[in-house]
Amino acid sequence: MRNKETVACNLLNLRQTAKFLKKNDNYIILTHASPDGDTLGSAYALYYALNEIGKAACVVCPDVIPQKYDYFARKTDHVLRENATIIAVDVADERLLGSLQEEFAGTVDLCIDHHVSNTKYAKNLYLDDDAAATAESIYELIVEMKVNINDITAKAIYTGIATDTGSFKYSNVTAKTHLIAAALHEFNINASEINRLMFDTKSKKLLELEQAVLAAAEFHFDDSCILLPVTAEMQTATGCSGTELEGIAVISRSVEGVKAGITVKQIGDEEFKVSLRTYPPLDASEICKALGGGGHKGAAGATVTGTLDDVKQKVLSAVKLALEQAL
Amino acid sequence: MRNKETVACNLLNLRQTAKFLKKNDNYIILTHASPDGDTLGSAYALYYALNEIGKAACVVCPDVIPQKYDYFARKTDHVLRENATIIAVDVADERLLGSLQEEFAGTVDLCIDHHVSNTKYAKNLYLDDDAAATAESIYELIVEMKVNINDITAKAIYTGIATDTGSFKYSNVTAKTHLIAAALHEFNINASEINRLMFDTKSKKLLELEQAVLAAAEFHFDDSCILLPVTAEMQTATGCSGTELEGIAVISRSVEGVKAGITVKQIGDEEFKVSLRTYPPLDASEICKALGGGGHKGAAGATVTGTLDDVKQKVLSAVKLALEQAL
Repeated sequence: MRNKETVACNLLNLRQTAKFLKKNDNYIILTHASPDGDTLGSAYALYYALNEIGKAACVVCPDVIPQKYDYFARKTDHVLRENATIIAVDVADERLLGSLQEEFAGTVDLCIDHHVSNTKYAKNLYLDDDAAATAESIYELIVEMKVNINDITAKAIYTGIATDTGSFKYSNVTAKTHLIAAALHEFNINASEINRLMFDTKSKKLLELEQAVLAAAEFHFDDSCILLPVTAEMQTATGCSGTELEGIAVISRSVEGVKAGITVKQIGDEEFKVSLRTYPPLDASEICKALGGGGHKGAAGATVTGTLDDVKQKVLSAVKLALEQAL
Repeated sequence: MRNKETVACNLLNLRQTAKFLKKNDNYIILTHASPDGDTLGSAYALYYALNEIGKAACVVCPDVIPQKYDYFARKTDHVLRENATIIAVDVADERLLGSLQEEFAGTVDLCIDHHVSNTKYAKNLYLDDDAAATAESIYELIVEMKVNINDITAKAIYTGIATDTGSFKYSNVTAKTHLIAAALHEFNINASEINRLMFDTKSKKLLELEQAVLAAAEFHFDDSCILLPVTAEMQTATGCSGTELEGIAVISRSVEGVKAGITVKQIGDEEFKVSLRTYPPLDASEICKALGGGGHKGAAGATVTGTLDDVKQKVLSAVKLALEQAL
């Protein structure tokens, strides 16, 4: 990691950010590691917009971009590191640059983000924490820059918004989110196909894993708590791992009457990643803090060591305590 | 059933429909049987709007209204049948009035609908088949009538739109759908809670049924076809039946690479309801027609008699033929 200059982070408004983007010429756009629809959609939409006004730009992602994003994540220009302006999109913390930290930490010229937890690591920051997705801000920036939007740009923005809102289902959705979606529907975006790819497509092996996980599901505390174990054995038997497992936590929060949905995913010999989803009055971040982790009120996590039984017992004790205190 | 007068159906535009609604005083609003979020959301939104301008109105539903709609489906006025104007919302065919046919067939004064298949059974019809939900039209009518929208009216309309679009995921969504959603977000609708109730809440027994169904899932024809059997035994063991089973067909269409998703649900001793979900080039309605049923290109159904093995064989043969013809 190169020496990081300690400079104050300069907060920009929308107009200033648009001006910044128009001023320079060669852009390297960084996404966060384990890329999702918002970081990728934001990066590519910005790339296409900058291209549209004759700027050279490239998108650099710390990890391989999943194939399902092929409909907008095309090959970008080659931009030399030396004379480039570095932009990070949807990257709340430099550490989320993953494998790109070595090369880019301390050098980000502009960060465009919507996470209230942004660590202000960039020289300039455009942060709209009311935006449901960073892609919302990208849309507003493109409009502010008066740059033409193409179908592919619209698809990328739509993807960012749809993925970060669970297709307009989450509490981060505002009137503005829908107004932007309405504007994007004027383009040929084939939104239903994007939603099918993002939300309604699961692999055969994931279906097999879900089956194994459901068969091992445990209900506790008068069915107010469900625990879904995802053992190493299940992962090996089905060939499912990593980001493919994200949907399991969704199951844990969708069961009627459940106040605490726990997913316990084995990530090492005696190491488990605990994902917790709660409904009021339970606070997932408080419970996970007690387990050495953290997060949001409704969704939090922690890494817990021990055998599966140890870990189950630790998590269930913490949830039990919270349930008792909430009575 | 009372004698039906054969009169031509009078097609109204938005302005004429608004005028019709303002003209009369006592309204009975009918929904279709097996009520969903759109027919109920439309009926109650219209009820609240008519109440707002001093009209007496009541909502009559052929079946018990599921508890999950309690947040907007409150007790309505009592309106005498004798001097009432009868309105049907989201009811494409008189037969869909179910248990209300006896009393109301042939007497519907106004139907407000968005189904292209509407049989024009009402004396007056406002049909916008570009609307993703009938609730979209109800919103436009209330605006046209210049009637105040309350939070509960907005919740009812949002519910109709969300349920008929799978929370803005389906191909029926237009820019207008999102514009209306944006307008509804200006009210206190708690959209994320509505979406949780409509889409992300399943009972423990349904989870158990899903587990049994997934354990019995069969893949055919190089994994291009999945067949999910829902036997009477599974339904009895888990206590899941009727509309609770609707989500199973969704699973069958969500598996990667699958062109034909089949759900075979036992409804009698040797009687099965087949639900078919297909992706192009397969045409579900063509395949189901061969089985004595029908439907849409992407989703169709048929009732097939025989043992489970007979029925499986019949359906798989029909799908195999379609797959071969599509090559």
